[in-house]
Amino acid sequence: MPSFKIYRGVAGLYDYGPPGCAVKSNVLAFWRQHFVLEEGMLEVDCPCVTPDVVLKASGHVDKFTDLMVKDEKTGTCYRADHLLKDFCKEKLEKDLTLSSEKAAELKHVVAVLDDLSPEELGAKLKEYGITAPDTKNALSDPYPFNLMFQTSIGPSGLLPGYMRPETAQGIFVNFKDLYYYNGNRLPFAAAQIGQAFRNEISPRQGLLRVREFTLAEIEHFVDPEDKSHPKFADVAELEFLMFPREEQLSGQSAKKIVLGEAVSKGTVNNETLGYFIGRVYLFLTHLGIDKEKLRFRQHLPNEMAHYAADCWDAEIECSYGWIECVGIADRSAYDLKAHSEKSGVALVAQEKFSEPREVEVSFFPNIWSLLLGEVEFNVCTLGKTVSIKKNMVSISLEKKKEHQRVFTPSVIEPSFGIGRIIYCLYEHCFYTRPSKAGEEQLNVFQFPPLVAPVKCTVFPLIKSKEFDDVAKEIAKSLRAAGISHIIDITGTSIGKRYARTDEIGVPFAVTVDSTTNVTIRERDSKNQIRVNTNEVASVVKEVIDGQSTWADIMWKYPAHHTAPTANEE
Amino acid sequence: MPSFKIYRGVAGLYDYGPPGCAVKSNVLAFWRQHFVLEEGMLEVDCPCVTPDVVLKASGHVDKFTDLMVKDEKTGTCYRADHLLKDFCKEKLEKDLTLSSEKAAELKHVVAVLDDLSPEELGAKLKEYGITAPDTKNALSDPYPFNLMFQTSIGPSGLLPGYMRPETAQGIFVNFKDLYYYNGNRLPFAAAQIGQAFRNEISPRQGLLRVREFTLAEIEHFVDPEDKSHPKFADVAELEFLMFPREEQLSGQSAKKIVLGEAVSKGTVNNETLGYFIGRVYLFLTHLGIDKEKLRFRQHLPNEMAHYAADCWDAEIECSYGWIECVGIADRSAYDLKAHSEKSGVALVAQEKFSEPREVEVSFFPNIWSLLLGEVEFNVCTLGKTVSIKKNMVSISLEKKKEHQRVFTPSVIEPSFGIGRIIYCLYEHCFYTRPSKAGEEQLNVFQFPPLVAPVKCTVFPLIKSKEFDDVAKEIAKSLRAAGISHIIDITGTSIGKRYARTDEIGVPFAVTVDSTTNVTIRERDSKNQIRVNTNEVASVVKEVIDGQSTWADIMWKYPAHHTAPTANEE
Repeated sequence: MPSFKIYRGVAGLYDYGPPGCAVKSNVLAFWRQHFVLEEGMLEVDCPCVTPDVVLKASGHVDKFTDLMVKDEKTGTCYRADHLLKDFCKEKLEKDLTLSSEKAAELKHVVAVLDDLSPEELGAKLKEYGITAPDTKNALSDPYPFNLMFQTSIGPSGLLPGYMRPETAQGIFVNFKDLYYYNGNRLPFAAAQIGQAFRNEISPRQGLLRVREFTLAEIEHFVDPEDKSHPKFADVAELEFLMFPREEQLSGQSAKKIVLGEAVSKGTVNNETLGYFIGRVYLFLTHLGIDKEKLRFRQHLPNEMAHYAADCWDAEIECSYGWIECVGIADRSAYDLKAHSEKSGVALVAQEKFSEPREVEVSFFPNIWSLLLGEVEFNVCTLGKTVSIKKNMVSISLEKKKEHQRVFTPSVIEPSFGIGRIIYCLYEHCFYTRPSKAGEEQLNVFQFPPLVAPVKCTVFPLIKSKEFDDVAKEIAKSLRAAGISHIIDITGTSIGKRYARTDEIGVPFAVTVDSTTNVTIRERDSKNQIRVNTNEVASVVKEVIDGQSTWADIMWKYPAHHTAPTANEE
Repeated sequence: MPSFKIYRGVAGLYDYGPPGCAVKSNVLAFWRQHFVLEEGMLEVDCPCVTPDVVLKASGHVDKFTDLMVKDEKTGTCYRADHLLKDFCKEKLEKDLTLSSEKAAELKHVVAVLDDLSPEELGAKLKEYGITAPDTKNALSDPYPFNLMFQTSIGPSGLLPGYMRPETAQGIFVNFKDLYYYNGNRLPFAAAQIGQAFRNEISPRQGLLRVREFTLAEIEHFVDPEDKSHPKFADVAELEFLMFPREEQLSGQSAKKIVLGEAVSKGTVNNETLGYFIGRVYLFLTHLGIDKEKLRFRQHLPNEMAHYAADCWDAEIECSYGWIECVGIADRSAYDLKAHSEKSGVALVAQEKFSEPREVEVSFFPNIWSLLLGEVEFNVCTLGKTVSIKKNMVSISLEKKKEHQRVFTPSVIEPSFGIGRIIYCLYEHCFYTRPSKAGEEQLNVFQFPPLVAPVKCTVFPLIKSKEFDDVAKEIAKSLRAAGISHIIDITGTSIGKRYARTDEIGVPFAVTVDSTTNVTIRERDSKNQIRVNTNEVASVVKEVIDGQSTWADIMWKYPAHHTAPTANEE
């Protein structure tokens, strides 16, 4: 629900109500189990308030911007690229008189939108006569607006700070301690779950583009010369929708590819990147994301940061189209190098050789090596410019024994937008149960037990102290087992109570119709079994913890058959 | 560890490294189990970025301030009350020539510190000749500094916002929806875990006064006319250290009181407040907080907000003294009323009468009733002042049938400073194992299994492929059971490996010394048992989940005796 609703809300800020909040905490608990525990990752927890210097080093202070235009009369702000994109799309969809050349031009503009400079974007807005959408007033030229929430740390006003736009920087600045904590060994991964903030110019797409959101990020540090992964075999056989660069550029669509082949053919840059793609696939489908509406799309060259080696987004299809929910990027050594340089603290790893190795060392200043491609170059010194020709320079090479190699690790970063994943999960888990003619249609959220906000409801069949007491006993045993539950003693018909519990996605409903035996009904199959009252908690727990499936349970316990009555159907 | 250390850090910002982060997530998981699940609370998750209007209504924009003084030359800022307190304390401790009157005066100043106005505080600083501690320069007059981090929402710069100083406001503004979600019934509780921010003037006391921290807050809404609690009997027998107002004022110390008596005698204002005091006691002691270093201290009248009915702090003793870690306050109807007034949305509850009740209704404007205590009052109208005498006013009373009562609920708020609790837990769980003369002392964190950052370590006794494979099999079964663990294959002596694992508080260590049977050692008793390799995970899980104690396990499995060797002792 929109945050601060009684004050008419704030665009881009949303609250999770009780069911959403429970789903979120289940998703995060499973994330910890599936990634942190399974891989022995080092989880850290860093503050959101971040001093200027850190985000200056990472490039966010200078480059984390969107191009903005202002309504020249009212001052209302818009994202320049959104206005241009909306204009082109509307023309393409609705203008029947459009020439094929014009159509091609507009399509091209949409394709290169992210590459346009402020000047180019401004020129296009002028050329197409685009005005403010609400007032039709003229627009300012586009200018960059930094998307970070700015603040000031401490009372002096002299220490500028920002609310972090991602959690990753907290890990990078701690690299040295984390590497030490891991026994100075590579590879290792650090992880962090936390809030991130982006002061969007004009938030839209509801829950998908918001100003504050929960990120779960992994930074897996590897030797750039060895990006193999010991557990890659565990995911190599997986086959799912992938959308490599070539297919996008040649106008094809995503297709099913076996992950092992994508890596061996070089479509995916390396095994570690491939391993995480596979693990992300398993994570999302376990949560309840539809396999057919999940694809891994490779970034096109113009989408990737210049330093990135390769990047794949897990995109999920929902009513807004294909939405980026997880980004899996090989960021090379960029971040560690940037912080090393700015802070003066070396963020590096060492590989100790078992035997010293002989290496050729050039005693030649780095900066000169870089310039050697040139035939001739100029050096400014003491106010004079001296021209140096290639033949004036000699390189001396010597052989030397080295006992270790010191290098900046590469980092592979799977970054999860938790809110987006949850939004898509709600869409994928929703269905309408077919109903008989004339009856109300029933909405169901078929959350897997792992994710369901409430695991179990307890209904006394009729209002009676005896049944209420049994229901309370069962609730007590569920509590002791850590199973979230609701008792519904409203006494309305069981059918209505089932409908209500299906609607929030509760997988199991216990109906108390005797003091010794009760029925457990599963939400999706509507099958019922009979169990002893004191077995309820352990049966439900077995399925929730994934030790048994409902089908296993159906084998073990007697089925409960009721003639379909007006109540249930 | 200090955040952003490679950039020399920022005062008041700290990171949790891997063990701290794991302890934190265990504490929060238990908090959810102990409070949210046990009481069926409605958990919500609201943003940190909060618009001005919300915090204007709550009083934070105007009143959430500390008095600050500036070094007149360097501009360095200090908390005025801290300087005055430090001065008085130092005088009292070190000045042997102090007269008894002067000592009494200084003690009085410390006692009333929180009540002093800026002018009074400034006068005292001048009177005592207090200067800037670092430079001895003159200080400015004290002036209020708002402790919220300010920012701006959206690109226009017209919507000021703050990083929330507490999570509670997110719940209050959602009261209407939450009440509806609860079937329009009272009492109910909402809960929220999240980051909160306070831009402290000069953070000190290490991890105890920080600029960003995790709060876990409960807002329990009740009918102000009925603050009884149906489950109070569950905690009434508890006996622990309480420090009521009277004892503090008469210079006594905290004493053990039975909770039920404290409520029945009126020392604690009502049953619901008492119930939460009892539940907080159980929560903290379960985590591993020492019962003898935990007391519940009642706020003195000058500490409480004017609207509060009663307030108790759970204080934990650590090396910094008695530290407030949980505040449990009856905040009456203050917050809901403030937001109702500012937003124009009625945040109220209804009690439907089973039969209509006859009530006397006075048709007399409220404002006049308020004034009726006065013999005479003045009314300003249309620029003229008219004096109205009591005998000029008559009250008409009529009888009327009412079907319901509409009222603003009271709220009882237990608010947990998670970072402070964790800090005290680290202090309380730390001990040094007695060692033989000449040997290094061994540090141990005796975290209960519930809290321990890593539950289990696995050591192959000697380096061998066979034992390594068994260790890997055990690790796999631990992973499947969701038990965090570390494999230590360094091959150093078992004694050293035990010491290392004790030092981070791992409760169980598994030593692989055969391919079929292994030993499990418990950290505090150092007792060992022998179990089958395939039983390890289930045995450890039983103790961690609290189904068995280590003593139970010792009964079930054969003990493993080793002659104390140099390695282990």
